[in-house]
Amino acid sequence: MQLDSAIRARKLFSNGKIQNSLGEGGGQLLGPGLSNLEYGHLGEIMGRSVWAPQIFNCGAPDTGNMEVLLRYGTKDQLEQWLIPLLDGQIRSGFAMTEPQVASSDATNIECSIKRDGDSYIINGIKWWTSGAMDPRCKLLIVMGKTDFDAPKHKQQSMILVDAKTPGVHIKRPLMVFGFDDAPHGHAEVSFQNVRVPTKNILLGEGRGFEIAQGRLGPGRLHHCMRLVGAAERGMQMMTERALQRKVFGKLIAEQGSFLSDIAKCRVELEKTRLLVLEAADQLDRLGNKKARGTIAMAKVATPTMALQVLDMAMQVHGALGLSSDTVLSHLWATARTLRIADGPDEVHLGTIAKLELRRSRL
Amino acid sequence: MQLDSAIRARKLFSNGKIQNSLGEGGGQLLGPGLSNLEYGHLGEIMGRSVWAPQIFNCGAPDTGNMEVLLRYGTKDQLEQWLIPLLDGQIRSGFAMTEPQVASSDATNIECSIKRDGDSYIINGIKWWTSGAMDPRCKLLIVMGKTDFDAPKHKQQSMILVDAKTPGVHIKRPLMVFGFDDAPHGHAEVSFQNVRVPTKNILLGEGRGFEIAQGRLGPGRLHHCMRLVGAAERGMQMMTERALQRKVFGKLIAEQGSFLSDIAKCRVELEKTRLLVLEAADQLDRLGNKKARGTIAMAKVATPTMALQVLDMAMQVHGALGLSSDTVLSHLWATARTLRIADGPDEVHLGTIAKLELRRSRL
Amino acid sequence: MQLDSAIRARKLFSNGKIQNSLGEGGGQLLGPGLSNLEYGHLGEIMGRSVWAPQIFNCGAPDTGNMEVLLRYGTKDQLEQWLIPLLDGQIRSGFAMTEPQVASSDATNIECSIKRDGDSYIINGIKWWTSGAMDPRCKLLIVMGKTDFDAPKHKQQSMILVDAKTPGVHIKRPLMVFGFDDAPHGHAEVSFQNVRVPTKNILLGEGRGFEIAQGRLGPGRLHHCMRLVGAAERGMQMMTERALQRKVFGKLIAEQGSFLSDIAKCRVELEKTRLLVLEAADQLDRLGNKKARGTIAMAKVATPTMALQVLDMAMQVHGALGLSSDTVLSHLWATARTLRIADGPDEVHLGTIAKLELRRSRL
Amino acid sequence: MQLDSAIRARKLFSNGKIQNSLGEGGGQLLGPGLSNLEYGHLGEIMGRSVWAPQIFNCGAPDTGNMEVLLRYGTKDQLEQWLIPLLDGQIRSGFAMTEPQVASSDATNIECSIKRDGDSYIINGIKWWTSGAMDPRCKLLIVMGKTDFDAPKHKQQSMILVDAKTPGVHIKRPLMVFGFDDAPHGHAEVSFQNVRVPTKNILLGEGRGFEIAQGRLGPGRLHHCMRLVGAAERGMQMMTERALQRKVFGKLIAEQGSFLSDIAKCRVELEKTRLLVLEAADQLDRLGNKKARGTIAMAKVATPTMALQVLDMAMQVHGALGLSSDTVLSHLWATARTLRIADGPDEVHLGTIAKLELRRSRL
Repeated sequence: MQLDSAIRARKLFSNGKIQNSLGEGGGQLLGPGLSNLEYGHLGEIMGRSVWAPQIFNCGAPDTGNMEVLLRYGTKDQLEQWLIPLLDGQIRSGFAMTEPQVASSDATNIECSIKRDGDSYIINGIKWWTSGAMDPRCKLLIVMGKTDFDAPKHKQQSMILVDAKTPGVHIKRPLMVFGFDDAPHGHAEVSFQNVRVPTKNILLGEGRGFEIAQGRLGPGRLHHCMRLVGAAERGMQMMTERALQRKVFGKLIAEQGSFLSDIAKCRVELEKTRLLVLEAADQLDRLGNKKARGTIAMAKVATPTMALQVLDMAMQVHGALGLSSDTVLSHLWATARTLRIADGPDEVHLGTIAKLELRRSRL
Repeated sequence: MQLDSAIRARKLFSNGKIQNSLGEGGGQLLGPGLSNLEYGHLGEIMGRSVWAPQIFNCGAPDTGNMEVLLRYGTKDQLEQWLIPLLDGQIRSGFAMTEPQVASSDATNIECSIKRDGDSYIINGIKWWTSGAMDPRCKLLIVMGKTDFDAPKHKQQSMILVDAKTPGVHIKRPLMVFGFDDAPHGHAEVSFQNVRVPTKNILLGEGRGFEIAQGRLGPGRLHHCMRLVGAAERGMQMMTERALQRKVFGKLIAEQGSFLSDIAKCRVELEKTRLLVLEAADQLDRLGNKKARGTIAMAKVATPTMALQVLDMAMQVHGALGLSSDTVLSHLWATARTLRIADGPDEVHLGTIAKLELRRSRL
Repeated sequence: MQLDSAIRARKLFSNGKIQNSLGEGGGQLLGPGLSNLEYGHLGEIMGRSVWAPQIFNCGAPDTGNMEVLLRYGTKDQLEQWLIPLLDGQIRSGFAMTEPQVASSDATNIECSIKRDGDSYIINGIKWWTSGAMDPRCKLLIVMGKTDFDAPKHKQQSMILVDAKTPGVHIKRPLMVFGFDDAPHGHAEVSFQNVRVPTKNILLGEGRGFEIAQGRLGPGRLHHCMRLVGAAERGMQMMTERALQRKVFGKLIAEQGSFLSDIAKCRVELEKTRLLVLEAADQLDRLGNKKARGTIAMAKVATPTMALQVLDMAMQVHGALGLSSDTVLSHLWATARTLRIADGPDEVHLGTIAKLELRRSRL
Repeated sequence: MQLDSAIRARKLFSNGKIQNSLGEGGGQLLGPGLSNLEYGHLGEIMGRSVWAPQIFNCGAPDTGNMEVLLRYGTKDQLEQWLIPLLDGQIRSGFAMTEPQVASSDATNIECSIKRDGDSYIINGIKWWTSGAMDPRCKLLIVMGKTDFDAPKHKQQSMILVDAKTPGVHIKRPLMVFGFDDAPHGHAEVSFQNVRVPTKNILLGEGRGFEIAQGRLGPGRLHHCMRLVGAAERGMQMMTERALQRKVFGKLIAEQGSFLSDIAKCRVELEKTRLLVLEAADQLDRLGNKKARGTIAMAKVATPTMALQVLDMAMQVHGALGLSSDTVLSHLWATARTLRIADGPDEVHLGTIAKLELRRSRL
């Protein structure tokens, strides 16, 4: 791919059609404005590779962060952070999870964001801040509490933090099954009396939970789209291997349960892709809230499917498949994180069950 | 439901848009002509009940047989058999499977259809001839061999047999997990020198395999559609039970893994429904041959899903769920047959795998 | 097998070594006194057949009832009921489950047993009273409440009821899937002012829960032993079928995933058999209470394993496997009941989890 | 643990009772001589930790290599290599797998071992030579072909190679997921004209396949024993976490499906441990060949069980569980290799199926 087309592609994701602070004319600045359904197909293609999402500026957590800025940012915030992000000049991180608390329940978060004159002062420890290891990382979106005494879902706020601000310490990369996921990585970050201008707050104090909800729908689906692509990559690699490698005098493709197993993988993959596209379409047509059940289903189903397919692909490759000589083990490890990241399976299953019971009660 | 609307509904299925022998004006006779995709939603609703498909004249094997007549019948055959079938005046059976051979491979079939002057003479033993136990059953579509020496897939023919013809013996009903599935049932039928006029042959000698292929695509999907409905019924019943029944001081809905399990059922159900509808849409847009991979996937995925959901529904009902006091065990038994009927899972998995390898070889 | 050896065998089960009311010399009357571990191997052999346990007088619920009488009966009760049971002169039923309440929690039971002079008067409705359909059924062991105001686990009593007592109405057989499980069957039984002599109470008022606990350990294991045998029967039948039946030009044994699948069945079967024998050995060595965790594990694991093996055996047999022309579908249906009978999986999983957490807390 | 007891323990494994070349008195030199069944319990305890097997000198591939030397070595070979291995003075590697061929079928191996006067000359490329990365590694047991024209299972020989011999190049460590498994690691090793004295051959030319068979039985079981311990570690860690960590206002131990899931893990673990101990006992009583079916079952069942338990343990820990901050992800990765190392699941399932069919044919 030529650099030029990559640069043109870099705005693929940004959905200029979302109501945003740039007003008329901003759309052009932001890109063609693909729907989630349209983007679904591109996300799948990019997900076949570990690095393609970055090349096309469509990687996590950047796209989720762009979505947050687009939806909730002021015009100034968009110009300062979103445009350079879309132009690929900077990278970003999303600092929500904390080591000391079960962060899948966002109300547990303990990082404090205290008003002090024209500034907020941030104190806390975050980890799994994906993207923060990247030397180009310029923006951290930090979730914390501005009011520990407010109602449970009004205590949280989100604030934009320049990663070079004094007091921000990128302490270490966290490993995922031994992988450091460079360059973006997953950082432990401490915030010690980090002073940030008040205009950096997103939407206003107490709106953090609401933004988290708004971010997570599309962000979760982007992960699912990429995972479908990762699974397709696994299908392709294992099929090619099975058609080349001989064991006990026969190709793997002619052995025992291979055909039955690959067929089961294909069935799982197709069912799951349809569910992801359906969720994307509901997100476009019905919005985040009404689509949340189907998004939760996609978020549970897709990593499980990708893990199954990639695990079989590894097995077909023998020890090679577990090593770093193919992409399979890395794709697998990434898929495994997504049974936890952006909400563990258990939380999404709870959402689905609640909606199921509600329907029955009507 | 009023009789009147049931009568109006009885032609729901028949797809008058299929090119057929009635020519212009025949469409009106045949019904509104739903696409497979449109019919998918109705099939699901009817599948919630054991008897609804019959009430709406959309039960197996009748719809598959109607489809065969519509696609391959002469004008005379349509008038003699299809119109009364659509009008609900008669019932039909499909006699293909034989006890002595593995009938999932249709080339194994041994029933002979011998030309003798203006007649064919049929000899053989069939079983699992669904529909033949019904006293109203008037038509048997019989698959047999007209030429044992022709190329492997040209030996078979299909012929229309009046169920009252001398030599047709309905020997006994076969049970499915103890159920006799009355009234239509599954019969063992012997054909002893059964003499049938030559005009009853479908399409011509040696076309039987081709017709079987054409019949099975839509017929398999109709089963899938109904199974999605059966699973929805299971979801509803278990949810209602869980919201009413107390064990150890708490509603089942508040116990242990119930919420997680029902959520997993919902995820499986939604994925599978989308796959069935996708297959129906491909059947409409691309035709039987190009859609065969996706139809095979639906045929494998749907019974498995329905069995899982219905099994959980039974478990939630306790011993009641296994008894005949609810519909669950019967729906389950029917779903179980569909991992075998119209091709066992193993055959469909083989089809899917073959297409997968072919794609990789390109 | 000759009648004579069957008669000698009929006392196989009765464990004369258990401390009982017959005193010295009673042992001879009761039989050789096999340990649970020894009996495990015999239970497996009998479980290969639907009717063998009856032939050897080792069927449910008789063995469980014999165990109750042996452990908790007075000398009179043993002579009146146990000896004829062991001699095969009468059959028995166990009336615990009630339709209106979740009976897996025995404290829910509502049947009343009221003292009235020298009698108790029983009122209530039971179902799934296995054995009660048998015309030879003479004894019902009934669980009910003698004191609705006592502490939760002291309200229940068990009482011996002659099945011919006025007021005992055997209302109907319950079906399991479509099977009636004749001759013993599963009855719905109503008790209307059934008057029974006070000496028929077991152990005394308020001891019902304790007896239920004592009965269930061995009774559950007996089911497990038989299920291992049922699974072995499935293994044998599917292997024989696979070595005889040709599909698409090859034996099933040479097809696709058959070898892999049967190997997985064998692995599951061996693991589970070892667990059942381990539980039997713990029951012998440590007693009911200390063995309860392992018994619960066996009770969860064995039906699941048997269902898996028998399901595959059915699939290998095609439609034949689902019919009543082989024993497979009946063995399967019986195995399915055992995910509910004698405590549903959910209850046993709860027991296992509780013990696991307790160990961790130490 | 004190150094002294560790030193005493270091000979735990060596089974001096095996007939070996040291004759009488050698036993004392070799250690107490535990049976496989006795060692099974110790293997489990050591398997709870990543490094304990090394500390006790009971790690792979050393124990397997010791077993090979003990069974097949000459007195000289035992004194030169086995005693220092038992004394913990040196480490060893096992060089069998090759990158270019499917090495699960040992007849594919291409490394050549050519006689040249008093020497053998070795040429070939090996990988997954576990142990070879360790700077203390002194001995490589190399499998290669001494006669490419001999009958299929007589071409192979095993030879003892000093790791410092010229021409032995340790090229790189292979990663397992992202882990390098230091210090022992898994090396790619090239052998270029490596000259070794003829007395280093094991048993004699053409005996390599036979030795491989003899080595693999106990070696596979040692892996299984350790995996049972790894799973126990997972059980303990997840239970402790679940009793400490609160999510949505409740301990994880009180949430949704946790109890049901941990109970299922316990059931799987107990079944599998019993199978491993049974296989060890059969190995002791019946020998390698007669025990091979049960060993194959243990080899298939144990990694699968350990992966399931460790995966759940990781999920309970959230993102922490996937990181290198706990031992879980490393234990998981090691367990995953054992679905491939020492024979992939597919090969063992094939062995089990073959024995099953053979039994049925009798």
